[in-house]
Amino acid sequence: MKATAVANANIALVKYWGKRNKELILPFNSSISMVCDGLHTKTTVEFGDYDEDSIKINNEELQKDEKDVLGHVERIRKIAGINKKAKVISEANFPVAAGLASSASGLAALTLAASKAAGLDLSERELTMLARQGSGSASRSISEGFGIWNKGEKEDGTDSFAETIAPKAHWPEFRMIACIVSEAKKATSSRAGMSQTVKTSPYYEGWLKTIDQDIENMKEGIKKKDFTLVGSTAEANALKMHATMITTDPSIIYWAPGTMEIMHSILQWREEGLESYFTMDAGPQVKILCLEKDLEEIQKRLSNLVKKTIVCKPGDGARLTEDHLF
Amino acid sequence: MKATAVANANIALVKYWGKRNKELILPFNSSISMVCDGLHTKTTVEFGDYDEDSIKINNEELQKDEKDVLGHVERIRKIAGINKKAKVISEANFPVAAGLASSASGLAALTLAASKAAGLDLSERELTMLARQGSGSASRSISEGFGIWNKGEKEDGTDSFAETIAPKAHWPEFRMIACIVSEAKKATSSRAGMSQTVKTSPYYEGWLKTIDQDIENMKEGIKKKDFTLVGSTAEANALKMHATMITTDPSIIYWAPGTMEIMHSILQWREEGLESYFTMDAGPQVKILCLEKDLEEIQKRLSNLVKKTIVCKPGDGARLTEDHLF
Repeated sequence: MKATAVANANIALVKYWGKRNKELILPFNSSISMVCDGLHTKTTVEFGDYDEDSIKINNEELQKDEKDVLGHVERIRKIAGINKKAKVISEANFPVAAGLASSASGLAALTLAASKAAGLDLSERELTMLARQGSGSASRSISEGFGIWNKGEKEDGTDSFAETIAPKAHWPEFRMIACIVSEAKKATSSRAGMSQTVKTSPYYEGWLKTIDQDIENMKEGIKKKDFTLVGSTAEANALKMHATMITTDPSIIYWAPGTMEIMHSILQWREEGLESYFTMDAGPQVKILCLEKDLEEIQKRLSNLVKKTIVCKPGDGARLTEDHLF
Repeated sequence: MKATAVANANIALVKYWGKRNKELILPFNSSISMVCDGLHTKTTVEFGDYDEDSIKINNEELQKDEKDVLGHVERIRKIAGINKKAKVISEANFPVAAGLASSASGLAALTLAASKAAGLDLSERELTMLARQGSGSASRSISEGFGIWNKGEKEDGTDSFAETIAPKAHWPEFRMIACIVSEAKKATSSRAGMSQTVKTSPYYEGWLKTIDQDIENMKEGIKKKDFTLVGSTAEANALKMHATMITTDPSIIYWAPGTMEIMHSILQWREEGLESYFTMDAGPQVKILCLEKDLEEIQKRLSNLVKKTIVCKPGDGARLTEDHLF
């Protein structure tokens, strides 16, 4: 009753921000992302005769505010109908809770490892729906390449699943450069932030009105490998999401001075003919979208702006491994 | 046929962003501001037997892209029915076109000086409506203290004027600290920016929906000298305006890294019990709202963040002076 899974983080190109159902984690809008080769979490789960559940993430015992992880283990245990305690060890190779989608890779790896350890044999679609209930964006870290998390319409969430739009081999030249502006944990969690935005931002309605068009443009851009369409849609979508955050009461401002500096640099570079786009999630990090041919030049220019970068290309979905952490 | 006027800039506490009529400069929403003692423009106008109009602003001949200034002189000349060329010299004691409302003080001073030099004797209300046609926010630099520019409903603009809500003596403890983050001219003028926002931002509708409440809160806050209500309303309103700018296509991002640094500092200081609020206009500068009692402490903390600050209190409206510039 032991299994280990590896799952990559994903970077949303059309963002998820706001839940229509908090219990089942059902979103107000569909979202599209790229699974990021290189930003992964590895998780080993064993169900056994332990006295209590124990969860260690990056060598730290689970904090009380991370109860959703424990709740997810309990959810899987119930589905499997087993009655044993869990030992979970999880390690990410990148900073946690700083806007680099650590909860996506973490909950996706946990979902696959725990369901396997519990004896469940779930389909890819079932795994995306189960991961979704741990952390919405985790649903997009199950399948490979470029994927969509369909918002679904049903109250029970059975049509709110993720699937691949294009496998990683479709567009191997696509790159995302994560610029680590700050490794500090963010002040407002995504979960609390989006809930407050839905309640108080006067712009949330405007956000939802424009999402379907963004989704259509992004699907078309990915299918046609139209980098300008993908990049410009992603950048505008990120700005729209941050504008809903900024206008939340109280205001949620994830951008740091370093965030702003990189954003302006990218706008400037684009005017000079070097094509790249920025996107930011619930944190200060900037993720730059570019093509392989421009990677070297962009990294050269970035060296004056940010100390640490991580480059990713379209990656694999979650997979099992025999290389256990304990 | 020569007159000189001095007018102060004003800082909008509820912002003006978007015109319903570009010819007459009629806004979609009412706005409220404080006239800033200390940020002034002085302008001397003479109509005489010159070969051509000449306009010098801060020792520089008028640029071709500043034709609205020449157009405003022509507008006043037509109203007065005179046929002489104008010599205009204007000087501001603060950076021009960097989001410090230089066009407001400039066009207000020009309106008063040119109308007087042309032999017109206009009421305060008439002056605000005339100044409005030169630059919308200039309408708010005619009257003293805290004022409102009523959006009006009429097509001909005759009900779109500014007036004092509270004279400067009503709240002498109120302070605005302008933090000069950058003296560079802004890339997108307010005029071009707001026009593009109205056309393309998916959030402009949401902006307009919430303005009436902001106006009511701000009026009440000023009347009751409720600093918390005034400050929090102003800060949230500024964030809402910038969120419409950010989501304009193409995006208009006026914030610089230094802007962000001061914003975060103010939020932090507030958590620590030092009450101040930020507001930003079409540029990178941050204007801090505070009370006189906290001015020293805030300035001390600011000294590590920004090189140049200008402190203003509620100021006078536009007035004539015999101290001509030529």
